[in-house]
Amino acid sequence: MPQTPLTVAELSEAELLTRIFPRLELGAAHNAAVLLGPGDDAAVVAAPDGRTVVSIDTQVQDQDFRLQWRNGYRTAGYDVGWKAAAQNLSDINAMGAVATSLIVSLTMPSGTPVEWVEDLADGLAAAIGKLGAGSCSVAGGDIGRGGELSITAAVLGTLAGGQPVLRSGAGAGDTLAIAGNAGQAAAGLALLESERHPLESLTPELRLLLDLQCRPEPPLEAGPLARLSGATAMMDISDGLVRDGARLARASGVVLDLDVPALRLLAAPLQAAAQLLGADPLAWVLGGGEDHGLLATFPAGVQLPPGFTGIGSVQARGTTEAAGVTVAGRPADSVGWDHFAD
Amino acid sequence: MPQTPLTVAELSEAELLTRIFPRLELGAAHNAAVLLGPGDDAAVVAAPDGRTVVSIDTQVQDQDFRLQWRNGYRTAGYDVGWKAAAQNLSDINAMGAVATSLIVSLTMPSGTPVEWVEDLADGLAAAIGKLGAGSCSVAGGDIGRGGELSITAAVLGTLAGGQPVLRSGAGAGDTLAIAGNAGQAAAGLALLESERHPLESLTPELRLLLDLQCRPEPPLEAGPLARLSGATAMMDISDGLVRDGARLARASGVVLDLDVPALRLLAAPLQAAAQLLGADPLAWVLGGGEDHGLLATFPAGVQLPPGFTGIGSVQARGTTEAAGVTVAGRPADSVGWDHFAD
Repeated sequence: MPQTPLTVAELSEAELLTRIFPRLELGAAHNAAVLLGPGDDAAVVAAPDGRTVVSIDTQVQDQDFRLQWRNGYRTAGYDVGWKAAAQNLSDINAMGAVATSLIVSLTMPSGTPVEWVEDLADGLAAAIGKLGAGSCSVAGGDIGRGGELSITAAVLGTLAGGQPVLRSGAGAGDTLAIAGNAGQAAAGLALLESERHPLESLTPELRLLLDLQCRPEPPLEAGPLARLSGATAMMDISDGLVRDGARLARASGVVLDLDVPALRLLAAPLQAAAQLLGADPLAWVLGGGEDHGLLATFPAGVQLPPGFTGIGSVQARGTTEAAGVTVAGRPADSVGWDHFAD
Repeated sequence: MPQTPLTVAELSEAELLTRIFPRLELGAAHNAAVLLGPGDDAAVVAAPDGRTVVSIDTQVQDQDFRLQWRNGYRTAGYDVGWKAAAQNLSDINAMGAVATSLIVSLTMPSGTPVEWVEDLADGLAAAIGKLGAGSCSVAGGDIGRGGELSITAAVLGTLAGGQPVLRSGAGAGDTLAIAGNAGQAAAGLALLESERHPLESLTPELRLLLDLQCRPEPPLEAGPLARLSGATAMMDISDGLVRDGARLARASGVVLDLDVPALRLLAAPLQAAAQLLGADPLAWVLGGGEDHGLLATFPAGVQLPPGFTGIGSVQARGTTEAAGVTVAGRPADSVGWDHFAD
């Protein structure tokens, strides 16, 4: 008998949800903030200090991921679920907050295998667990049909009585620091897009970069630690160090100056991939997005919290100078990724 | 010179957001709950009683709406924005809560006219204002590219210290009541899908039904009033009275019995459309979704709050009987709409 996979068109919404929900159960500690979970018109989530931090992010097939990449890699449901959780958890992290819940809306073509959707649920749960979002669980969601795969997650979080770390608080003299990866996801993307270097030929070191593109690892402990250490400004690096740095610089009215030796250190793990593909590893560090590291500024002299590395300093803007990013005093080109400008 | 409309591909994300944000500003009363609005990694919304009610809903082109309908109607960005807000606000209403904020993620093909997106923002703001979501505003969002138009909104709300009205609390002897429309949106959908009766030929009465499909009007005052009046169970009727009623009945372990005279009253405004299209107006009342009315149960003898009409009663389940919906004691077929089962 031919094995044709069961598709979502063959199940009712209720039957599909019955297969998904058990995979999202994360245990009592994770679920403590969810006062009312899936199954009613809305969920109820604890907001212990009377405020909720909230963000939303969407991934769309062929725009944010390919189901089949040029090097032969097939994006698993697990990858898409992981990335949806990671991206959103990172937005909460970047405020210095801790995630309490994810609400997920999944749009799928009717031919989508049920197994792929179950794998997506596993990826969501795994990211929450393995990235250390210890008090976060999936509080609810929505599934529906569409011509292309698309997943949107909204994330809620708590500041536990603290103040959010905004993009606008950096001051001249502050130390500029980074936590997490920078350029790995971009190098991984270049490998995925390379027909000349098929998946099977990649060394474990290169495969790791590919994995970090498909399943990014935002440093979720670093955001709240930065807040507690007095970070003056912070943001998630999703579109690249220079592009996102320029946003922080503009919001704060300052110049962020990056140190070349620090950039070289960040580029070191990318050397092998750069050599293989004839690419510039510094361009990945400066322009690569999707690692979801944190860029933060701290008052001079503050000991950087665990996970952060100094990469430069905040400088006052000259009278004729635009707020932005420089590398050793010279303007860095905005080489990151933007949704619409080609 | 030919007038080609400006498309989203011709603007950067920042430029597009600059055009959208001013359209979403709703004034101080609306914005009071939003402690930190768009522009940072996440928003911060007040949750005065230490809890946040949250839901999410997605609309996808060609699944939830057509850009061009068979009767000639073109879906405006305004309609899509309105419906995104209305659907989500209704989920909060159905818990007996009041919305504090919407977070919106919009996915668009690169050829989407900027004007269409501006119109969508206007529709979002208009729905919030005109439906009476007086303390709700748009706290943030995300825009991105995709092969088809898709909009996801997450909505946050507050119970102001009260308990959420769940689907599971209905008890035998309770009065069954409805607030808002029932069948109007389904009749409007049938008109939109009818090639034989073009848009221009519709009377104002018929045009109203079409408008209620494109821009539904959930009764946002009714949910919190029902909670304060002691409603034992409540839900949003998005998939049809019988289908959604069966969900409430199953959650509560009861039978909901609908009165025929009450159903006939609900069908009255649909008579003209039914006659034109040769349809059964009762089928629209029982099976039509997307009106986002409320179905609620109240203890016997309680005076129904303004906006609610009695339509039947809650009965104990017989020993061999399944929880579900009956009409004058006879099983009502499940004729509503489901996302996947064809």
